[in-house]
Amino acid sequence: MIVEIINTGSELMLGSVLNTHQQWLCRKLADLGYVVDRQVAVPDTGSAIQQAVREALSRADLIITTGGLGPTSDDLTRQRIAELLGRTLKEDSAVLAQIERFFSVRNRPMPERTKVQALVPDGAIVLPNAHGTAPGLAIEVLPSLLRRSDRPAILILLPGPPRELHPMFLDQVVPLLRARLPLETPFLCRVVRTAGLGESMVEERIGGPLQPLLERGLELGYCAKFGEVDVRLAARGADAEAAVLEAERIVRPLLGRHVFGMDDDDLEGVVIRLLTERRMTVAIAESCTGGFISHCLTNVPGASAVFLGGAVTYSNAAKQAFLGVKPETLEADGAVSESSAREMAEGVRQRHQSDLGLAVTGIAGPGGGTSEKPVGTVFIALASPERTVALRCLNPYDRATFKFITSRQALDLLRRTVLGS
Amino acid sequence: MIVEIINTGSELMLGSVLNTHQQWLCRKLADLGYVVDRQVAVPDTGSAIQQAVREALSRADLIITTGGLGPTSDDLTRQRIAELLGRTLKEDSAVLAQIERFFSVRNRPMPERTKVQALVPDGAIVLPNAHGTAPGLAIEVLPSLLRRSDRPAILILLPGPPRELHPMFLDQVVPLLRARLPLETPFLCRVVRTAGLGESMVEERIGGPLQPLLERGLELGYCAKFGEVDVRLAARGADAEAAVLEAERIVRPLLGRHVFGMDDDDLEGVVIRLLTERRMTVAIAESCTGGFISHCLTNVPGASAVFLGGAVTYSNAAKQAFLGVKPETLEADGAVSESSAREMAEGVRQRHQSDLGLAVTGIAGPGGGTSEKPVGTVFIALASPERTVALRCLNPYDRATFKFITSRQALDLLRRTVLGS
Repeated sequence: MIVEIINTGSELMLGSVLNTHQQWLCRKLADLGYVVDRQVAVPDTGSAIQQAVREALSRADLIITTGGLGPTSDDLTRQRIAELLGRTLKEDSAVLAQIERFFSVRNRPMPERTKVQALVPDGAIVLPNAHGTAPGLAIEVLPSLLRRSDRPAILILLPGPPRELHPMFLDQVVPLLRARLPLETPFLCRVVRTAGLGESMVEERIGGPLQPLLERGLELGYCAKFGEVDVRLAARGADAEAAVLEAERIVRPLLGRHVFGMDDDDLEGVVIRLLTERRMTVAIAESCTGGFISHCLTNVPGASAVFLGGAVTYSNAAKQAFLGVKPETLEADGAVSESSAREMAEGVRQRHQSDLGLAVTGIAGPGGGTSEKPVGTVFIALASPERTVALRCLNPYDRATFKFITSRQALDLLRRTVLGS
Repeated sequence: MIVEIINTGSELMLGSVLNTHQQWLCRKLADLGYVVDRQVAVPDTGSAIQQAVREALSRADLIITTGGLGPTSDDLTRQRIAELLGRTLKEDSAVLAQIERFFSVRNRPMPERTKVQALVPDGAIVLPNAHGTAPGLAIEVLPSLLRRSDRPAILILLPGPPRELHPMFLDQVVPLLRARLPLETPFLCRVVRTAGLGESMVEERIGGPLQPLLERGLELGYCAKFGEVDVRLAARGADAEAAVLEAERIVRPLLGRHVFGMDDDDLEGVVIRLLTERRMTVAIAESCTGGFISHCLTNVPGASAVFLGGAVTYSNAAKQAFLGVKPETLEADGAVSESSAREMAEGVRQRHQSDLGLAVTGIAGPGGGTSEKPVGTVFIALASPERTVALRCLNPYDRATFKFITSRQALDLLRRTVLGS
């Protein structure tokens, strides 16, 4: 099965926006067993859209387009694809009623142009839009001059805004794919998410033991992000489920406490869940990460029940005043030191009366490094009722990467402390 | 001139990573006058790479590929493109010496496979890599069976890692394009960056006054990001510079204090620059944004000189203990109120002894809203030596969007206060 994605939008070609649809759709499709073979982005012109769809129809069994279903003059996808396929567009009264309802519920007048969104190409399946006005469309394209294959292709048109596209894909496209374009063989994919090991160390631990399964068709992939490595285990065929679950059983103990979750889990979500389950609270003191760790944790809905607060203390004065770091410690060891990190963690814990206190202090750069403590040096400390532990790490990267990696190291220390592992 | 980008990488097709190259390259190329007509992503297989390059050569004058120049077995771009073009690969001794130096400087042994990166296709221009081992390559493809045009095409191969690709593009590809593939006519593009106005309000203010220039060929584009709108002014031809500068002269006073910068300026960078210039310091108290505003400001190198620190105070207890918010205020008006925001701003200013104190308190959701203060309600206050000002905003979006928009509103209030506008 060949799968292609076409993203339309002149704003993509000007680089005004980031194309997040590619990653999102590719990931969702791959995890369902429909690995994308090609992704194309073209501007909002009729000829570019038609050319991209024509090429895709000549190759692919499943084609998903994004964007261009809105009411404005540069929204051409619906019309131009109908034209290419030789389908007439008719106003669908159910879709129109839904659009009218969308506006009336919000007490807003419906602009006349919005009506074009109720036009449906002959024979298309309407995918209602629960979060906007433009419905998606699914069109079966039978073998023809355009579709030179003995199998029909499925062409799916999705709206551009992510908050409309995501639920429409999950709730409507996934069941439609399973019904209309079932995989030739069973497929299973599981992603084991790890923190605290490099890619080569993960590979070293699990590559050998998985060899027999690889020989029997297991697909093994690594994806290293700074501070995290995902292990993707996939298989096709009658034994797919058995192979992937067996692989997971082999991998988990070999990676041990480094496994923080599966599939869509993220480190901050896991930390908040663990703290909530164990009724523990945390407070955070940040220097070099400048609020990023608090930001990550508070991205998780419900964080406020377990994250009491934090302090961003850039200056020595702030470290003394708000965390109780001793002037002697700052003088003797400096603000970037294990002893300062420990006092920051203990200070933030005590002042917030939280169960745990997490602290980081380091040199994000580009300036401020020394030969003893080069740019990228960071100390991470975690204070609990029993003890305070500290790590020294070296993350010599640009500022944004430094913050990101340091946040992973700090959150993973927090996770393992809560787990007691 | 037709421009196409080809991103190679199986990890893109699995959705394991976000393709940031598309936006970055499209933006840089568009601002130079080389608007990208098509972007394609394909997996790391020889046939997919060759097919994509073959198609692009049939259409485009400039083709840029990213990825696949590394030393591992899935890095096939260099070999497969040389094969497609019928060029032999020869080891380039200067490139090899540079790679050897890269490892010796870092005191690391050079893996044998790294040597493939010194292979250069016949006639290619080497683009040395200052930040890694894989050099880029530029190849002129003359009219041929592959290149059915009367003009040659330029094919540029860039390495995948952004920290290698970005400087190579700016330092080497841009001058090469200007020399080898000059624009047919002069081109100028300027982006006016604004905050605090919606897209339709920006359009309403400037659309009419720009009409005469639009009729003379000015290209006008809007890009709305949450809380910010970019106005892109571009023109081609002998009068390009005059037209764009005239447009900028018209636009600036109409948008007034909403203009925070030009081109690559960002709001946090502008705020840090203004604070630095005026020798003013700031401290920040965050509730619902959970550290995100501090994170944004501390992404700017040099922020530590003007950003003294901040407090993330989720709980009422923390607002009282660390910011001095009065219990009566919290009881009478609630933590999400103008009076609490004002006391937070004044408290963080006084405790950090900063010139300015910025505070936000609101309801990020998904829970916690009431009919009087629905989800998305946020109060932003700024305390200065003279006075404390406060804003009430409604940002009823998902958590991440809520944080982002709120940060723009808060940083813009800070910017305008520093400016005294």
